[in-house]
Amino acid sequence: MSFPAKITLNEVGPREGFQFEGIGQPQKISTPDKVRLVEMLAETGLKSIQMVSFVSPKQVPQMADAEEICNSVKQKPGVKYSGIYLNDTGIKRALATGKLSMTGKITLTASETFSLRNQRRSTADDYAMQQKITALYKDNGIEVVNGSIMAAFGCNYEGPVSTARVLALVENLLTITSEGGSKLRTLMLADTMGWADPELIRRNVGAIRERWPDLRIGLHLHDTRGLAIANVYAGMQEGVDLYDTAVAGLGGCPFAGHKGAAGNVCSEEVVFLCQQIGVETGVDLPALVECARFAEHIVGHALPSKLLNASLECRMPAATAA
Amino acid sequence: MSFPAKITLNEVGPREGFQFEGIGQPQKISTPDKVRLVEMLAETGLKSIQMVSFVSPKQVPQMADAEEICNSVKQKPGVKYSGIYLNDTGIKRALATGKLSMTGKITLTASETFSLRNQRRSTADDYAMQQKITALYKDNGIEVVNGSIMAAFGCNYEGPVSTARVLALVENLLTITSEGGSKLRTLMLADTMGWADPELIRRNVGAIRERWPDLRIGLHLHDTRGLAIANVYAGMQEGVDLYDTAVAGLGGCPFAGHKGAAGNVCSEEVVFLCQQIGVETGVDLPALVECARFAEHIVGHALPSKLLNASLECRMPAATAA
Repeated sequence: MSFPAKITLNEVGPREGFQFEGIGQPQKISTPDKVRLVEMLAETGLKSIQMVSFVSPKQVPQMADAEEICNSVKQKPGVKYSGIYLNDTGIKRALATGKLSMTGKITLTASETFSLRNQRRSTADDYAMQQKITALYKDNGIEVVNGSIMAAFGCNYEGPVSTARVLALVENLLTITSEGGSKLRTLMLADTMGWADPELIRRNVGAIRERWPDLRIGLHLHDTRGLAIANVYAGMQEGVDLYDTAVAGLGGCPFAGHKGAAGNVCSEEVVFLCQQIGVETGVDLPALVECARFAEHIVGHALPSKLLNASLECRMPAATAA
Repeated sequence: MSFPAKITLNEVGPREGFQFEGIGQPQKISTPDKVRLVEMLAETGLKSIQMVSFVSPKQVPQMADAEEICNSVKQKPGVKYSGIYLNDTGIKRALATGKLSMTGKITLTASETFSLRNQRRSTADDYAMQQKITALYKDNGIEVVNGSIMAAFGCNYEGPVSTARVLALVENLLTITSEGGSKLRTLMLADTMGWADPELIRRNVGAIRERWPDLRIGLHLHDTRGLAIANVYAGMQEGVDLYDTAVAGLGGCPFAGHKGAAGNVCSEEVVFLCQQIGVETGVDLPALVECARFAEHIVGHALPSKLLNASLECRMPAATAA
């Protein structure tokens, strides 16, 4: 494969970052600051921004203002604003805002243990839930065209995930959607716990494409073990043209107390990579770096982005000659 | 090209890190702690450790103990311990320790502005200095077999560096060594200011290899803009089997006040990448992660390594379902 001429970035920083910051504490980042970041991101050329999560306000107080964010953001024409939801309560809340791009999406998880811990559902229950969600979408006149596989490359509880298991889950997503009267068009492979490596990316993308050549494949990559940008490059080499990314690497934090939290691959670093290798993103890099700077400001600590701290000035230590 | 079966890591963390930490202040990390880290690194399976820099103690007080480190480290048989030096004063100090692997090495810089600022030498002066160093090695019975190009992929002052310029510098290195009665065997391309990208790595490595197929090529990559691990992967794809890396990403620091300082690509992340894609390093990953933990302890702040903070336990936020 050759590089795609152009890729789409789905900016997930607001959702990933706001949800994670101050976890277990009362809401930390003010709603106006969240709204401001989303509005700034929309000015960079990004066409898709995931800004909220419809999760239990009791369990995740940081996202208790999901509806308020949706109502406050001044939407820019041509930009898709979205949210996530993992069950029917969430999807109903999202629909009720009337503010979100509700592209029908269902999600299966490659690890039953992770599914039980994260969604409190067995694999069988999860399958049934996705059928229910598909029907719910249909009742609202929305076709389910997006599928996603969580923990697609491995799981901290269950270890590596085989390519065969991934293929079986794609099959399941296709079955659920077609039985629900829809046709799956896009498949996101989510490296939820950072188990992917560049060769695994190439192998799994290749295997899926061989069997379902018309399915558009996207990648959602966490930088847990430092390989995310290499995984993006491997994705590019396989022609993957859709990536979830997080401005400044939001959702991750290198500090003690937050250790082990790794965000998604950093948006501005993906844009920089693309710029260097001649892949179009449509995103203004300096404007995106300004967003990253603002994100760091409102979270109140350094974020993982390296590019954010680089500049065109020389930053080397002074003369090292003896 | 296919991946190399086995690569060599040259651990530069002690030298890069100790030199940078507390820059402009009196010596921050104690000599025994530096010695301990070097000794721990030698136990991981690493066969090459760059531990000191022979630079002006006045300009770089953090490295004033270079001789003391050389004298204190209990050397492990089979491991090469080295240092760096950019002029004849430095090389004489290094030789005088009698403790270092003094493989003859000369270095040219692709950017004259950077050379003037970093080494206070013009391109012409630098060329003459490398001739002088070659002669100095010869006087000490050492053949110059290693060459290095600094700022090989771009410079903060002068911008991109062309492949033609890199090829001309390789030519110069070959001329200086052959005129000095040696034969260049290894060429390091140093991305001193983080300008490389995976395609540029592949292009330059390919161009050099095409012209000088017998020259072993190595990469010294800084993570200034977040692409270092993708650049390593690109190097692997071109069959490059020699990398300078820094444990924990020493030399870099994500904190305010140190912003813009980016270390070399992180040793344990390179070892992890290799492990995943089936390239042998001979390094024990858990032992190396312990070294990274100790490095973080002695510098007293978080270092760039992501892998250091990852573990096999699940680190995801608690249940996110509504």
